[in-house]
Amino acid sequence: MPVTEDQLAEIEAQRAETAPTRRVVARGMEERLYTLHPVLDHGFVRVIDYMGDDAAICQAARVSYGRGTKAVSNDEGLIRYLMRHWHSTPFEMCEVKFHIKLPVFVARQWIRHRTANVNEYSARYSILDREFYIPAPDALAAQSTVNHQGRGEVLEGEEAARVLEILKADSARSYDNYEAMLSQDGQKGLARELARMNLPANIYTQWYWKCDLHNLFHFLRLRADSHAQYEIRVYAQTMCEIVADWVPLAFKAFEDYRMGGVTLSAPAMDCVRRMLKGETVTQENSGMSKGEWREFEAAIRSN
Amino acid sequence: MPVTEDQLAEIEAQRAETAPTRRVVARGMEERLYTLHPVLDHGFVRVIDYMGDDAAICQAARVSYGRGTKAVSNDEGLIRYLMRHWHSTPFEMCEVKFHIKLPVFVARQWIRHRTANVNEYSARYSILDREFYIPAPDALAAQSTVNHQGRGEVLEGEEAARVLEILKADSARSYDNYEAMLSQDGQKGLARELARMNLPANIYTQWYWKCDLHNLFHFLRLRADSHAQYEIRVYAQTMCEIVADWVPLAFKAFEDYRMGGVTLSAPAMDCVRRMLKGETVTQENSGMSKGEWREFEAAIRSN
Amino acid sequence: MPVTEDQLAEIEAQRAETAPTRRVVARGMEERLYTLHPVLDHGFVRVIDYMGDDAAICQAARVSYGRGTKAVSNDEGLIRYLMRHWHSTPFEMCEVKFHIKLPVFVARQWIRHRTANVNEYSARYSILDREFYIPAPDALAAQSTVNHQGRGEVLEGEEAARVLEILKADSARSYDNYEAMLSQDGQKGLARELARMNLPANIYTQWYWKCDLHNLFHFLRLRADSHAQYEIRVYAQTMCEIVADWVPLAFKAFEDYRMGGVTLSAPAMDCVRRMLKGETVTQENSGMSKGEWREFEAAIRSN
Amino acid sequence: MPVTEDQLAEIEAQRAETAPTRRVVARGMEERLYTLHPVLDHGFVRVIDYMGDDAAICQAARVSYGRGTKAVSNDEGLIRYLMRHWHSTPFEMCEVKFHIKLPVFVARQWIRHRTANVNEYSARYSILDREFYIPAPDALAAQSTVNHQGRGEVLEGEEAARVLEILKADSARSYDNYEAMLSQDGQKGLARELARMNLPANIYTQWYWKCDLHNLFHFLRLRADSHAQYEIRVYAQTMCEIVADWVPLAFKAFEDYRMGGVTLSAPAMDCVRRMLKGETVTQENSGMSKGEWREFEAAIRSN
Repeated sequence: MPVTEDQLAEIEAQRAETAPTRRVVARGMEERLYTLHPVLDHGFVRVIDYMGDDAAICQAARVSYGRGTKAVSNDEGLIRYLMRHWHSTPFEMCEVKFHIKLPVFVARQWIRHRTANVNEYSARYSILDREFYIPAPDALAAQSTVNHQGRGEVLEGEEAARVLEILKADSARSYDNYEAMLSQDGQKGLARELARMNLPANIYTQWYWKCDLHNLFHFLRLRADSHAQYEIRVYAQTMCEIVADWVPLAFKAFEDYRMGGVTLSAPAMDCVRRMLKGETVTQENSGMSKGEWREFEAAIRSN
Repeated sequence: MPVTEDQLAEIEAQRAETAPTRRVVARGMEERLYTLHPVLDHGFVRVIDYMGDDAAICQAARVSYGRGTKAVSNDEGLIRYLMRHWHSTPFEMCEVKFHIKLPVFVARQWIRHRTANVNEYSARYSILDREFYIPAPDALAAQSTVNHQGRGEVLEGEEAARVLEILKADSARSYDNYEAMLSQDGQKGLARELARMNLPANIYTQWYWKCDLHNLFHFLRLRADSHAQYEIRVYAQTMCEIVADWVPLAFKAFEDYRMGGVTLSAPAMDCVRRMLKGETVTQENSGMSKGEWREFEAAIRSN
Repeated sequence: MPVTEDQLAEIEAQRAETAPTRRVVARGMEERLYTLHPVLDHGFVRVIDYMGDDAAICQAARVSYGRGTKAVSNDEGLIRYLMRHWHSTPFEMCEVKFHIKLPVFVARQWIRHRTANVNEYSARYSILDREFYIPAPDALAAQSTVNHQGRGEVLEGEEAARVLEILKADSARSYDNYEAMLSQDGQKGLARELARMNLPANIYTQWYWKCDLHNLFHFLRLRADSHAQYEIRVYAQTMCEIVADWVPLAFKAFEDYRMGGVTLSAPAMDCVRRMLKGETVTQENSGMSKGEWREFEAAIRSN
Repeated sequence: MPVTEDQLAEIEAQRAETAPTRRVVARGMEERLYTLHPVLDHGFVRVIDYMGDDAAICQAARVSYGRGTKAVSNDEGLIRYLMRHWHSTPFEMCEVKFHIKLPVFVARQWIRHRTANVNEYSARYSILDREFYIPAPDALAAQSTVNHQGRGEVLEGEEAARVLEILKADSARSYDNYEAMLSQDGQKGLARELARMNLPANIYTQWYWKCDLHNLFHFLRLRADSHAQYEIRVYAQTMCEIVADWVPLAFKAFEDYRMGGVTLSAPAMDCVRRMLKGETVTQENSGMSKGEWREFEAAIRSN
């Protein structure tokens, strides 16, 4: 069951209403507020509230009385300096609250980020909706042969069809049986907190998730990364687009120094210096293991 | 698949070995170390390591150079004073690390306690075992008619049989299909990180979970409480027994002031004072709502 | 040096400006925004930003799509239920950011609350102002004779005068010497990060401090309590007044269940039950120590 | 007043005693236990307790039943992999507790690391000792002319003498007056919680500080860094030596990937790639600001 007409009407009603505030307002974020950004087949990301903007980061860094300098160029320089030198506290002064709908197996990864506030829809208290994540054909991949926790080639033909058939049939049957156990029609009806144990990890749940900008960047760096599992990465990417509209200067700094940044080890930096002096460096004389060398080569050769 | 012979042998080997240490040693906890304490049908709690004892709480509270006073009675008085007056930091000076095996739906509740360190067995990287929680007959309860998130009467007869049959059959089928999708026999084999989504919430997972004593007490107060879901409460109760052996003075104070303690609201304290002066107080003249009055009555009448 | 004319003008400029927002707006809090609430002789509390209101607590608890029920009575009941049953996560969905000026010895107590975000004015980077906390005459108290960490009778006459004279003279001298060491007039000038070590703990510092409502309530319960040191209590009390305007329903629940609530131990509850049955209970037959009994008597006899 | 004979005797008594334990024992750390490692003129670092070792990191990463592989080479590879790929949770499975004596201005920086447990000696409850940090001559530096929060050239001659004289005289006078205000000889005596406000930031305090290895590494990376203030850096360096004895494999990985590692931004990596292809890159065509380019040049040219 998708988002209902009533729910969409509630969202539109929220978007239609504005009220005056003395607080800092981030124009780009106001445009995003409440709107349902679809992710995967039934999931979404919605911004419910936010606090602060690029200027608020600088205001906190300066512990200033007013809004501080109006020169955007000064703010940009300061924000980039703060990001480059790992000054995390000014970024913690911005906060954002999302409403997110996501499969349980994604939620289980996500919740490992402990520095956020979370209110999850309770399956002890309520009955979950019949909504399951069924991967699109191009997301159905085989186990990676090089990475123990990644995925490799896309499945094709009959194998892909079998997998989709299994996922759909097992989802449907487990939900039918969930309802059958809960039913109070001619029987007592199993407690919700017990019946839920029959539901597979591709069922959707939803939560309110609130986080400060510093910790959100940490989350995004790990989860929007190409090594993250596809199903959480698409959420992170959607959130990146939203954050870019909210705090454009901070997001640009984040992209340059974190997302696009590379941490080179002491031996790797040593190799870079030798190579820049014209020396031929190979894995054998690099002081790095084969795995490290492979990652190093990828970093300095890419693009 | 239960704990294997090899695993039991590893546990016995760990228990057989001792080495000298200059650290504080808690005799009662040494007895517990590594032993597998069974919980539910396939779960367990094992202590892997610990830091500190009752005396270490006092030592930290006094910021002392040595082990501090040797008089146990002084330590007991101090520990009770600290607990009564919500001095949390000395209790944070003790730490414990558990290895726990538990159903996924229990793990999902548990992980909401964010102040612990956790390493969970990864279903992206590894294949989960075929182990599912199937409730014992007396744990199969109906939805509560008074509490939206609790359970009521035990299910009986055919209804109970139907529920058990569903849980067993769906577990078996979902695991068969999990294996079928993973299989590389004549096909590529679905990535582990995807195949896991077919597994229901009663499958077992395991983790290393490390926590300081203050936050462990907070966890135990909520989860060993009679309102907690049975399936997490049995873990908390097992941990209570372990903690009682580890820090007996602190655990006694915890029992008296937290587990057995009752927080009465300002209006409720006012009623107690009026009642002690001989006044007849009823819900109507109590200043409390019906729900609050019911909870108040239960607190002052129960023995 | 007090707040300057320029700073006051900046504050007024911020207050004069409003902009439309789609976010939840708390009318009572808008009135407070940016205004400098004086505390002690040179300190203050200012609200810089906030997120959420009473309804946002309920919206998160219900994980709802819209603003949820419009009936305030429903929200009130839900908020009181959540507070009474220690459901902390919905209260974490509100956030507030303060700008605070406070003596260093108060800041040292305050910072022990670790669940907030903080940006402090840096004395490595900047030169502190010549502002010191000098207690008002009625705040100059003797060491308590019953409480090792409290204060007792107010000092009078010559003793009070001597103390004030010392505090003023030492503050002035230490600041003069701070400036003398920093000066680059005819000398190199000591680094700021070193010169600051000469400044006493009654000098004022300032910071931006951001916290969610749940953790703010925890802070206020401990620091607005009558056992807290006067100099931090006055900050907490000012913040209580602000929070009461921001989230009136949540604040009332906090007052009833936390500030005005009393946690009675298991033995104490047992005594209450015996007393309500007409039994005469004394410390001797109470199962409580003298200290516990004294606190118990104070709780049930007060008012 | 330095550490007393009695305190040293207590320390020796603790070191002399050993007891058998089933827990993991880190031989290198046992040697360090309780010993007072001097820092600055009156400060110290002492290890009070620890949990885990290099193998415990791997055991948690593998969620294993026993001690896991005995091959040190496997553990080393795994630890380096975990560190390189920012897997923080296995490092959180080790814990250490220190007793530290340090000047208040250092403590104020230190406490900003919020992920540790702390019990500080209370100046509300107790009277502080007459011990002040007076910098050694070569630590008396001028304000940096290039870095707003750093120090530059060492002060010399009369200026250095004047500064030392001020620090000593002001420390002595403030402590004399602290005692005079506290005295109950012929007067009531000011409360401790008030009298302490006269003490300058170079007075020593002490605390118990407990932290997991992941967060300790984060602390050490920032505070053992050459940009950290000298007075906190010497504590961090002492702790580095201790950690190297405790978890040698993890510490080596930390040195290679964190302490000695360099994070290059996306534009900086782009420059490296262009330079390795033989292109001449200058600040002008680098896409970096002057500040970024200066830091970049320092990173790739230094040896």
